[in-house]
Amino acid sequence: MNDIDDAGETARRLDRTHVFHSWSAQGDLAPMVVDHGRGTEVWDAGGRRYLDFSSQLVNLNVGHQHPRVVAAIQAQAGELATIAPAHAVRVRGEAARRISERAPEGFHKVFFTNGGADANENAIRMARLHTGRDKVLSAYRSYHGNTGAAVVATGDWRRVPNEYARGHVHFFGPYLYRSDFWATTPEQETERALHHLQRVIEAEGPGSIAAVLLETVVGTGGVLVPPPGYLAGVRALTERYGITLVLDEVMAGFGRTGSWFALEHHDVRPDLITFAKGVNSGYVPVGGVLLSDEIAATFEDRVFPGGLTYSGHPLAMASIVATLDAMAEEGIVENAARIGAQVLGPGLAALAEKHLVVGEVRGVGVFWALELVADRTTREPLAAPAVGALTTDLTRRGLLPFVAENRVHVVPPCVVTDAEVHEALEVYDAALTQIEKELHP
Amino acid sequence: MNDIDDAGETARRLDRTHVFHSWSAQGDLAPMVVDHGRGTEVWDAGGRRYLDFSSQLVNLNVGHQHPRVVAAIQAQAGELATIAPAHAVRVRGEAARRISERAPEGFHKVFFTNGGADANENAIRMARLHTGRDKVLSAYRSYHGNTGAAVVATGDWRRVPNEYARGHVHFFGPYLYRSDFWATTPEQETERALHHLQRVIEAEGPGSIAAVLLETVVGTGGVLVPPPGYLAGVRALTERYGITLVLDEVMAGFGRTGSWFALEHHDVRPDLITFAKGVNSGYVPVGGVLLSDEIAATFEDRVFPGGLTYSGHPLAMASIVATLDAMAEEGIVENAARIGAQVLGPGLAALAEKHLVVGEVRGVGVFWALELVADRTTREPLAAPAVGALTTDLTRRGLLPFVAENRVHVVPPCVVTDAEVHEALEVYDAALTQIEKELHP
Repeated sequence: MNDIDDAGETARRLDRTHVFHSWSAQGDLAPMVVDHGRGTEVWDAGGRRYLDFSSQLVNLNVGHQHPRVVAAIQAQAGELATIAPAHAVRVRGEAARRISERAPEGFHKVFFTNGGADANENAIRMARLHTGRDKVLSAYRSYHGNTGAAVVATGDWRRVPNEYARGHVHFFGPYLYRSDFWATTPEQETERALHHLQRVIEAEGPGSIAAVLLETVVGTGGVLVPPPGYLAGVRALTERYGITLVLDEVMAGFGRTGSWFALEHHDVRPDLITFAKGVNSGYVPVGGVLLSDEIAATFEDRVFPGGLTYSGHPLAMASIVATLDAMAEEGIVENAARIGAQVLGPGLAALAEKHLVVGEVRGVGVFWALELVADRTTREPLAAPAVGALTTDLTRRGLLPFVAENRVHVVPPCVVTDAEVHEALEVYDAALTQIEKELHP
Repeated sequence: MNDIDDAGETARRLDRTHVFHSWSAQGDLAPMVVDHGRGTEVWDAGGRRYLDFSSQLVNLNVGHQHPRVVAAIQAQAGELATIAPAHAVRVRGEAARRISERAPEGFHKVFFTNGGADANENAIRMARLHTGRDKVLSAYRSYHGNTGAAVVATGDWRRVPNEYARGHVHFFGPYLYRSDFWATTPEQETERALHHLQRVIEAEGPGSIAAVLLETVVGTGGVLVPPPGYLAGVRALTERYGITLVLDEVMAGFGRTGSWFALEHHDVRPDLITFAKGVNSGYVPVGGVLLSDEIAATFEDRVFPGGLTYSGHPLAMASIVATLDAMAEEGIVENAARIGAQVLGPGLAALAEKHLVVGEVRGVGVFWALELVADRTTREPLAAPAVGALTTDLTRRGLLPFVAENRVHVVPPCVVTDAEVHEALEVYDAALTQIEKELHP
């Protein structure tokens, strides 16, 4: 904790007294008190500046306080803050049109939700009703949200204490650095991961499977960009068996990978796409499902049994319109692509060259991971206390990191500048040097 | 459909092309295009004014475009639109404090969600972890949201196509007009409904039951105010068996019944309270769980395995602070109580006297239902086509109604004026006269 001013101390006290925090035991929390942010920068209540290389849970693609998005929210609040989903309002149609236009051919309709979890909930429901089948296949390394069905679709540990739904089957996806298929090349990993998925489909019974649900790029599970041909192979498999393919672009979509949708890199047209986060940088809570025309047709004459009070909320819609227009006109997606290819990617690769504690660097756009290891040969993950010390040290050095298991995810806003990347690379370099010194004194 | 202007036509076309609507077959939709709203009034794209006696899904307790709430959203958007839940910001603590202060003794912590559904999801999870038990008991007449676990807790038809979770048991609650217990007085209904619940608890096995989840006042299921002694009886039963009592105040809370929480009318202190809607009139999507100190203590040293990106979203928090302050300073809750007792309640009772099609009037504050019947003696519900005709006629006469099954729910904002209530009563009167003429020409 830094020194904080009186207002900051009030904020801290109110937080500790009244706010119940997620994914935590409440007794040992010492949250940073945030005062304000701008672009890639955040200031705490003590006036200290930080580089936000977390994007606030990989969310803020346009950065903090983008003036056009702020202005659009303010204008919409003054005009019509909220309206029930049954009515029509222009801003909702404008938002849905802009999202559809950035999707592959043959996607025209959007169902809006409150976030990514219920986007996946509703996509699963659509797939089940569309196919008349029940099972949903998803990867062990995945995070699809935290409501009753969505959390069981999730493969990581967070599903275990929350496993209250049925019909979910998990399989292994490609992850060459820690291959579950004894593969040594990307081609082999793709081929074997597809074989594995086909075996799971056959063993579960293709006629029982409604959907395969996949993050286009696995996010919190490790920033796993699928090897060439994998997603196209999954598409071919699901088509062969009449299975709906749902791509979860909640974290990967809207600029994070340097394209509007991450699926553009993979030559694949799914049946449903879910999104949240980057679509409006989370300035107003929102998520949604993009429906292919084939799935939409199922619900032309048949009632879709789902809905929520805040679906298509005007404030959220206005923030989507402004965000997508700003991203297009200011070249924000192109910036993410350029930064990834020319500045951040090479810079992280240089860090990996220099620091033995970095086992692998992987990623695309502004979506990267440094996988930290105790030993490069055995690839034994760096232990939790060392990762914790590194996290603390990065923050102390003025960088807000995103850390998951033995990985530092390097996920700045898409608007990050070259100078900010260079500054951050120096911080990572210094912190990695420090942790190596502590590990091998 | 009224005539609409060109902008309205564009909005309509965009909506039909790109927006997937909830709870509907998409082919036969003709949504009203809304232009703007103010207080209890809404204008469509043709310039036609409507009295909003739906409150947009029983949501807008402070009415459309309350200037203080709008200003607070605009100011917060300019200051800090979003921040991850792990950090602390003052406005979040201020919102949580204001909510806690309106709760019964011994409630200090709030876990914020995106809406009512995930509020119930997380309350169920807390109850399961707190008790180490699995089953959740809730009423057949209930609506608790539409995500995987929340929707199965729901008792009405909407749970059936979405039943993907386990451990949910449903029981019958009190509903004297259509008693499931052959009761003829409120005292008898209370006593027998409690006996029934006790039998269900015994038959399911008390040691297997984590929670009883109840709407304090059943909302969409019929505006069922529990008869005297029922909720206190449920509290006594749950205490006897170590079962967590969760009261869902998503629709009933924050002024709707003429008090801050509906539970104030019922002399009951639950373990968890869920909320959404009225807490900020839905100006920004938000919901949450209020934790009793006993439940909060469970998670002092133990990780709570739940969370979401937009938890405690600053825009939502600012709108809560402004809403609750405006409600307090402008006597909005008191207005709802007065309107219910002195204007709306008596007015609806007079309509029931006059119109045979009204089987029962019930409610409190600005939370009322007219239960419509084909026959007062048999209490046979009014058939769907007649209810549909009435709905269309009410809208044609300039009132946005809330209709569920054979009931018109009379649910204006808490800021509704005496004059607006009198105007609405005339509309209901005329439409009921018309439908009776059509039924018995």
